[in-house]
Amino acid sequence: MLVGDLYAFQDLLTDEEAATVHRVREFLSAEVVPIANEYWARAEFPSHLIKQFAGLGLAGVERSSLVDGWLALEMGRADASMATFYGVHAGLAMGSIQECGSPEQKERWLPSMASFDRVGAFALTEPTGGSDVAAGLRTTARREGDTWVLNGRKRWIGNATFADLIVVWARDEADDQVKGFVVEKDTPGFTAVKIENKIALRIVQNADIELSGVRVPESDRLQLGRSFKDTARVLRATRAGVAWQAVGLMIAAYEIALAYAGERKQFGRPIAQFQLVQDLLVRMAGNVTASLGMCVRLAQLQDAGVYKDEHSALAKAYCTTRMREVVGWARELLAGNGIVLDYDIGRFVADAEALYSYEGTREINSLIVGRAITGHGAFV
Amino acid sequence: MLVGDLYAFQDLLTDEEAATVHRVREFLSAEVVPIANEYWARAEFPSHLIKQFAGLGLAGVERSSLVDGWLALEMGRADASMATFYGVHAGLAMGSIQECGSPEQKERWLPSMASFDRVGAFALTEPTGGSDVAAGLRTTARREGDTWVLNGRKRWIGNATFADLIVVWARDEADDQVKGFVVEKDTPGFTAVKIENKIALRIVQNADIELSGVRVPESDRLQLGRSFKDTARVLRATRAGVAWQAVGLMIAAYEIALAYAGERKQFGRPIAQFQLVQDLLVRMAGNVTASLGMCVRLAQLQDAGVYKDEHSALAKAYCTTRMREVVGWARELLAGNGIVLDYDIGRFVADAEALYSYEGTREINSLIVGRAITGHGAFV
Amino acid sequence: MLVGDLYAFQDLLTDEEAATVHRVREFLSAEVVPIANEYWARAEFPSHLIKQFAGLGLAGVERSSLVDGWLALEMGRADASMATFYGVHAGLAMGSIQECGSPEQKERWLPSMASFDRVGAFALTEPTGGSDVAAGLRTTARREGDTWVLNGRKRWIGNATFADLIVVWARDEADDQVKGFVVEKDTPGFTAVKIENKIALRIVQNADIELSGVRVPESDRLQLGRSFKDTARVLRATRAGVAWQAVGLMIAAYEIALAYAGERKQFGRPIAQFQLVQDLLVRMAGNVTASLGMCVRLAQLQDAGVYKDEHSALAKAYCTTRMREVVGWARELLAGNGIVLDYDIGRFVADAEALYSYEGTREINSLIVGRAITGHGAFV
Amino acid sequence: MLVGDLYAFQDLLTDEEAATVHRVREFLSAEVVPIANEYWARAEFPSHLIKQFAGLGLAGVERSSLVDGWLALEMGRADASMATFYGVHAGLAMGSIQECGSPEQKERWLPSMASFDRVGAFALTEPTGGSDVAAGLRTTARREGDTWVLNGRKRWIGNATFADLIVVWARDEADDQVKGFVVEKDTPGFTAVKIENKIALRIVQNADIELSGVRVPESDRLQLGRSFKDTARVLRATRAGVAWQAVGLMIAAYEIALAYAGERKQFGRPIAQFQLVQDLLVRMAGNVTASLGMCVRLAQLQDAGVYKDEHSALAKAYCTTRMREVVGWARELLAGNGIVLDYDIGRFVADAEALYSYEGTREINSLIVGRAITGHGAFV
Repeated sequence: MLVGDLYAFQDLLTDEEAATVHRVREFLSAEVVPIANEYWARAEFPSHLIKQFAGLGLAGVERSSLVDGWLALEMGRADASMATFYGVHAGLAMGSIQECGSPEQKERWLPSMASFDRVGAFALTEPTGGSDVAAGLRTTARREGDTWVLNGRKRWIGNATFADLIVVWARDEADDQVKGFVVEKDTPGFTAVKIENKIALRIVQNADIELSGVRVPESDRLQLGRSFKDTARVLRATRAGVAWQAVGLMIAAYEIALAYAGERKQFGRPIAQFQLVQDLLVRMAGNVTASLGMCVRLAQLQDAGVYKDEHSALAKAYCTTRMREVVGWARELLAGNGIVLDYDIGRFVADAEALYSYEGTREINSLIVGRAITGHGAFV
Repeated sequence: MLVGDLYAFQDLLTDEEAATVHRVREFLSAEVVPIANEYWARAEFPSHLIKQFAGLGLAGVERSSLVDGWLALEMGRADASMATFYGVHAGLAMGSIQECGSPEQKERWLPSMASFDRVGAFALTEPTGGSDVAAGLRTTARREGDTWVLNGRKRWIGNATFADLIVVWARDEADDQVKGFVVEKDTPGFTAVKIENKIALRIVQNADIELSGVRVPESDRLQLGRSFKDTARVLRATRAGVAWQAVGLMIAAYEIALAYAGERKQFGRPIAQFQLVQDLLVRMAGNVTASLGMCVRLAQLQDAGVYKDEHSALAKAYCTTRMREVVGWARELLAGNGIVLDYDIGRFVADAEALYSYEGTREINSLIVGRAITGHGAFV
Repeated sequence: MLVGDLYAFQDLLTDEEAATVHRVREFLSAEVVPIANEYWARAEFPSHLIKQFAGLGLAGVERSSLVDGWLALEMGRADASMATFYGVHAGLAMGSIQECGSPEQKERWLPSMASFDRVGAFALTEPTGGSDVAAGLRTTARREGDTWVLNGRKRWIGNATFADLIVVWARDEADDQVKGFVVEKDTPGFTAVKIENKIALRIVQNADIELSGVRVPESDRLQLGRSFKDTARVLRATRAGVAWQAVGLMIAAYEIALAYAGERKQFGRPIAQFQLVQDLLVRMAGNVTASLGMCVRLAQLQDAGVYKDEHSALAKAYCTTRMREVVGWARELLAGNGIVLDYDIGRFVADAEALYSYEGTREINSLIVGRAITGHGAFV
Repeated sequence: MLVGDLYAFQDLLTDEEAATVHRVREFLSAEVVPIANEYWARAEFPSHLIKQFAGLGLAGVERSSLVDGWLALEMGRADASMATFYGVHAGLAMGSIQECGSPEQKERWLPSMASFDRVGAFALTEPTGGSDVAAGLRTTARREGDTWVLNGRKRWIGNATFADLIVVWARDEADDQVKGFVVEKDTPGFTAVKIENKIALRIVQNADIELSGVRVPESDRLQLGRSFKDTARVLRATRAGVAWQAVGLMIAAYEIALAYAGERKQFGRPIAQFQLVQDLLVRMAGNVTASLGMCVRLAQLQDAGVYKDEHSALAKAYCTTRMREVVGWARELLAGNGIVLDYDIGRFVADAEALYSYEGTREINSLIVGRAITGHGAFV
């Protein structure tokens, strides 16, 4: 049981699920945590871990949303970048194919992705719009016989510097509908340039993508996708995942802070004895526990097949907001040492900013919820 | 299903439990909500409702903690004062007898309390200390043969102006242990003076109590109580109840604000169309949903018999903190109309302050949690 | 010097100004503070104080904005209702005549208002719109020869149950411009009904006004007013006043909490010794000091004649936001006693809600500032 | 005038002071801003700027506290690291000599420091205690004839990897008093090791220092220092400086966010048109303006010679708290782009964490204020 799981939510998992969680947690503790700060400092991706992720046998397996969420939590607790790497590959890329691909397409792509032989990316966001904007999508697809020609630019595309398969969303010039295409990395006209100088999720390799007359066969267009609603369905699931990741970051921050408070001495006593320090810790604990309660219920709604966009939008907005508080309090508790990577908390503080904004900012997710509860769209 | 129950937590109840909840909700809507503002304005207690509460058959019945909590939620959603009346009677007073009374005592008192023929109160807090202070309890009990003589003062004792049975906690001069006594209202030396000029929970009749040589037979001392730990066990349960009530207040505030936003027009449109209004509503929705997730899990821990003081202390501190935000945002949304009782929200804003502080302030409950997670007490 | 004036801002006043402040402070301490809770509880206005206010010689006197602001602070510190009474009379009503009246009109009305022989009110807000809405004003004025006929409804009009002169703003049916009219209280067709059941500023007598064919001579139309911009100019000044009042409430709350913390004992010591209590006090002190620094600079801009709507809108929104925090922390510090009027803080907590929303909500004032700094109006 | 100086506080400077500010601002814009991100990314100090700083003629010149504060603001607005470099050199190191040195010592050291021919550092903080801890200081000084022998460790010492003169504070083993010593960089036994892997203030070169039998002549002991109170006096001044720097960071963040909001389009319009964006900007503007009002008054108290430890502790705690909010909101407004250094805000977000904690955490500064206002120390 995690120290930060004060209400023993983990007990809601089946034994088998708990075993999976335990296995993944062990892997993350052994392989990811020890190297995370180092790769983060260098802004490099630990490619050697890809095969190890494969070994966990997680991707492409049917599981309850609860354990799926908990796995996202564990990854977030270990390292937000690796959680993101996994979320982009298994959630966004494989999820898009799963959701919008024909049986033949699923058969063609998913097995090699499940084994991480081919890594996926997901290219929706553009330089001039957030991940939310159906209306504003400027990347175009023009059909020429059995071929589609893609033109446009994408930004922030995670994994894209090394991904083998990139799911690209573009607007069909003919019918103005958004369609999905699987682009292979060496396709002429496709270039991905790493975004440098990030201060968050530095291990994630985000790219600015240029599509300049990229030609894709009709057979690589996701056959069952009809409109932006398909993309929304993928995002609905991955936003829930980000909420879980956010809980993972909170738990990590809480555990780091609690351990530090027990060891660090001031005025001759462990600072854990001071009211102001306990106050910080208890605020963190409250946020962790309430957010986890929210995520667990969301997973139940998912498994029951009744969850909607607003449900995951609310969880994403709320949990990442609480996360931002929690990592901030933890950093505060570590004072000066909180700004040195070696004390771990620094990385979580920085990475939290990315989670707060990606997959829809707090504002956009709030407006998605707002539309649902009021019946009025207030986006513009 | 409540409008404010966005994640359909109510579905976690069994059909039978849901039916009970439905019945209570109907009663509250029909009998309590319509008169609450009026009685609140006059600071009077609607005595005629006592028999109606009895008719619901709630008190003294074994139920899951989940439905028990949900009933507290429903009462809080209707009126925090009535929720408090019920909580003091059924939770604190009957709970103390249940927890610390001998079989004979339970048999003697509980049935007439379950039928509300006799209303209970719970006298722990003193003028110079909060509800938390075992160490500081100044009310004394001195044994003289088969009689105990009680002396001291109590403050804030809910229901006490009209209660038939008051559970009084006092320190035995002989062994310095805290013991519980059931005092009947007309016992010589017992006086209860209503606290006037309250700005919150004005329907609740709190009293300053004076015990001046009050004589109680040994047979009215709670026989199984040994120490302050028994009181703590009662408080542990009622604090969980306050967390649920707080969720009820939040839901009421959210629902009032949402309805108002749909009707109120500004610049020719319903204000629900404005981003700043949606933002307030979504913040409320987040707090409601996360707090409810926390309470539900707490109830599961209760039912599993594994919950501890820190679990309910955390829920009490956290949910009442979020509640204070929510009622404030709702009041803000109603602007000027928010300060007139007739628009309902005003009462919830005011009452929230009492819930925030009673059954242990945020500070005390945080320090209870802090002690548990750090291993260090920081009370002094 | 006030205990809450930690940075000695009062030293910025001239000796003469400080003497005025001192005189007003003494008056408030002697006459207003001792009776405020009692009148508040009864929702009555202490009419006997009107003559005493007159005796202070404050209204209608030219003074620096700094001392004017400081006087608003002192009134807010004593009682927000009395501060509002004064603000409505001297700021809104007299200010409108000063700003938009002809010399003859000023001569006719201002002296008797300065002596409080005639009390003023200011009727802008309507049931369907906040104090901000030029566009939405529905009260109409129709000219018939030398007479104007006013029709419409106003809401929230302070002092209006007993005011002698009510400045009413209405839209001229002919040119669609907002014009101001001074209506005498007994004019046929004018009725003012007290708004009951308020939970804030209960001493202030707000009314719902109905204007039903009220006939006003052209000579009672404010001659120099041309458009809503005149009203905006009055509001600009009174919003600054509300910011100062808010600082007054904060200082009162801080001083009450600090005194209480020094006297109240828990675990055998004054609670002022606990870190969590000091933390609350220091947060309050920070808000007080920063808000005061803002108000002082605003007054300097006013005196220099360079301040704009956005300057006072920012101060109003910011200081009332901080005030809400401060009174909440003070109430928290007093725990249970904070909900009984006799401990003073309760009244300030309640009244703060009204200040937060009147003269433009936080949202509206923010959008006024937002328009100024971005160049884009975002009201709708 | 700065865009972020909405209340024109700069007008409080004399013409001469404003000219100095203007000159420094120009220099910072031309020389520091363009290279800050690049050096920050590499965690290097731009040594070539030292001579240029010298050319500004700022150090060691008598000025009003107001302009001194404003210069700290300008530096903070350009780059928090360079502001820190300057604050450590001119404030902490030169300030210590100014405050505690004999006339001969001032003459000996200050001129070459004023010309930046020799750069200073200030070594108070130790690995096991914050900058506040007189009682806990473990570095020792033992007098042997005319020589002192220093032993101990220091942490977080800014500039220390390249500083020529390091003011070291140590406890005299003989009388247990804290004394100051000026140690030259090449003194045997003195080693300074750069702290790597910082996520904030990466341009500042902080070091872990080891003093192992470092021998310093009595003539290099600061002759007028008697106790820790001298150090407190230096910290009092530099804490005020940090408050000003924090305002500088806020202004930078506000200006970056405002500019971005005007340019960035979403749904076909500049995001500055959205209520939620204006709300963020106005919250920032409020914090900036109120904090600046606080700092200005603090400077007046300094110049009047009446300011005390609690005054600057309050400003430091308050302004850095508000700063943390402001940079967070600005980052939020820039969404994804906010995590790339090139958009500037990222650096300010990261650096803010260091300012929040250095020169006394929020907690310690709050307890300093708390002691002053309550009369009770609550440090332990």
